[in-house]
Amino acid sequence: MTSALTTAPGFTGSLLDRVDAARHDAALVAAMRVDAQALLLCLDELRPSVGADGGLGWTALDTVANDVPLALLGRLDDRPRFVALTPGVSALRRSPELFAAITTLSPAEAGTYATARSLVDWHARHGFCPNCGHATDLFRAGWGRICPSCGAEHFPRVDPVVIMLAQHGEGAHARVLVGRQPGFPAGRYSALAGFLEPGESVEAAVARELHEEAGIRVHSVRYLASQPWPFPSQLMIACVALTDDDALVVDHSELEEAKWVTRDEVAAALAGDPAAPFLPPPAYAIAHTLFTRWLAEG
Amino acid sequence: MTSALTTAPGFTGSLLDRVDAARHDAALVAAMRVDAQALLLCLDELRPSVGADGGLGWTALDTVANDVPLALLGRLDDRPRFVALTPGVSALRRSPELFAAITTLSPAEAGTYATARSLVDWHARHGFCPNCGHATDLFRAGWGRICPSCGAEHFPRVDPVVIMLAQHGEGAHARVLVGRQPGFPAGRYSALAGFLEPGESVEAAVARELHEEAGIRVHSVRYLASQPWPFPSQLMIACVALTDDDALVVDHSELEEAKWVTRDEVAAALAGDPAAPFLPPPAYAIAHTLFTRWLAEG
Repeated sequence: MTSALTTAPGFTGSLLDRVDAARHDAALVAAMRVDAQALLLCLDELRPSVGADGGLGWTALDTVANDVPLALLGRLDDRPRFVALTPGVSALRRSPELFAAITTLSPAEAGTYATARSLVDWHARHGFCPNCGHATDLFRAGWGRICPSCGAEHFPRVDPVVIMLAQHGEGAHARVLVGRQPGFPAGRYSALAGFLEPGESVEAAVARELHEEAGIRVHSVRYLASQPWPFPSQLMIACVALTDDDALVVDHSELEEAKWVTRDEVAAALAGDPAAPFLPPPAYAIAHTLFTRWLAEG
Repeated sequence: MTSALTTAPGFTGSLLDRVDAARHDAALVAAMRVDAQALLLCLDELRPSVGADGGLGWTALDTVANDVPLALLGRLDDRPRFVALTPGVSALRRSPELFAAITTLSPAEAGTYATARSLVDWHARHGFCPNCGHATDLFRAGWGRICPSCGAEHFPRVDPVVIMLAQHGEGAHARVLVGRQPGFPAGRYSALAGFLEPGESVEAAVARELHEEAGIRVHSVRYLASQPWPFPSQLMIACVALTDDDALVVDHSELEEAKWVTRDEVAAALAGDPAAPFLPPPAYAIAHTLFTRWLAEG
């Protein structure tokens, strides 16, 4: 089971060098923008344009007009990489085609796409200053916006989300809690999840969410892994927590159903066994990593 | 060393029940607002008003005019708890008095204060819609804002920050990297830290920050603990990472100095030994927890 333990979560391992220092150096960014080696990420609105090789599509930067706002993603294979910031692109255009395209990408390439997607989406929905309402300007090579009226600086949001397996029992008797949201594909169950709020630690958010959604009290919260989730820009923080009482009170405004499943049932679901009591989340979701690592530990 | 392992990070363990469901029920919130048991958190701008007992100050809710916007913090000791949302309060009013007041609070009370402070500050700086520039309205009992023009919903930001010890060597030869920022009090060193960016996992952000600030490459990133940090609203994610090469290239735009310290030196610093080679961060900072737990593991 060692290989399962080392499986990287989806969207992790991007090989981009983010060249943070360059973002503060307008002359350096201008030079990169006219570098003949510079490349632009090909996006169809917010969908990746996947080439015949299954990799991300890139095109020469000089195909873009000079007045198109760009973000400097960084350097990759020693070439500057940019993405165009297209006003009005909506984050909500998620489709089966999008997820099919993501499935063809390696986790590292999906991570580069995730970075670009979250940036493009943030600019599209954050053109005005939340402090004073004035239109803002791009700065830091596309990694922020600044208000010419009140001077406030704004940076892309990353919203932490906790995603967790509650575990009841130990060893061969261990079971974990899975739930399904109303919008899930038929048969799919996943780990429970929710946004972390101001004033909370990871551990507090895990305990609150499991109590709100499933009525259980947990302890011994343990971090397992994390991943970026670019719909639009979450940090998924995956944990396991223990409970001494398996009685559920499900919040049906959040979950259609929740149930306990055994190690054997999780293993069957991950293996694609048609007799498994649920369909697992897709491989690029950290819930899949969470099931895989929890099984590997057992 | 068991007690050190179980030391809670600062600002964690608030006893507030956040009553998430109530936020969606305007009639219930209205009833709580006229509940004779309801209490209002006493704040002096954004500083806590600490009573003679060293605890947070609260006052009867009916001392506030009906038109003052409030956020429902939740229930505590079975009483509804609110905080007033004061327009124009600045997040930047950090002072020695503020930190002295925080030191007198228990971690649980500091956690309640952190929740209130981050909420008040967010509303004060987010009165306009970043999507269209229109003035927004409060909704969800103070846990969000909604735009009457474009319909966009906005929720309080929590910005994930990684804070980490790079470790070189093992056992008795182990040393960790500490650094000082230009604004630190004389002699103080702490763990390195930085904001996690869109498209990054916790592990990727730890590796990037250590490379950017200190020029080292790390592996085997391990999560240790987390805390909310209400200046204005960060989630601090504390990790340890290993490096095989201790040669430093310090980014002096970020750090005044960085250096390796041994277990004995960290222990001396935490013990307040005047011969220690650095002054540690304050007890309510998770960097302190990070040093304490790293020592306890050794």
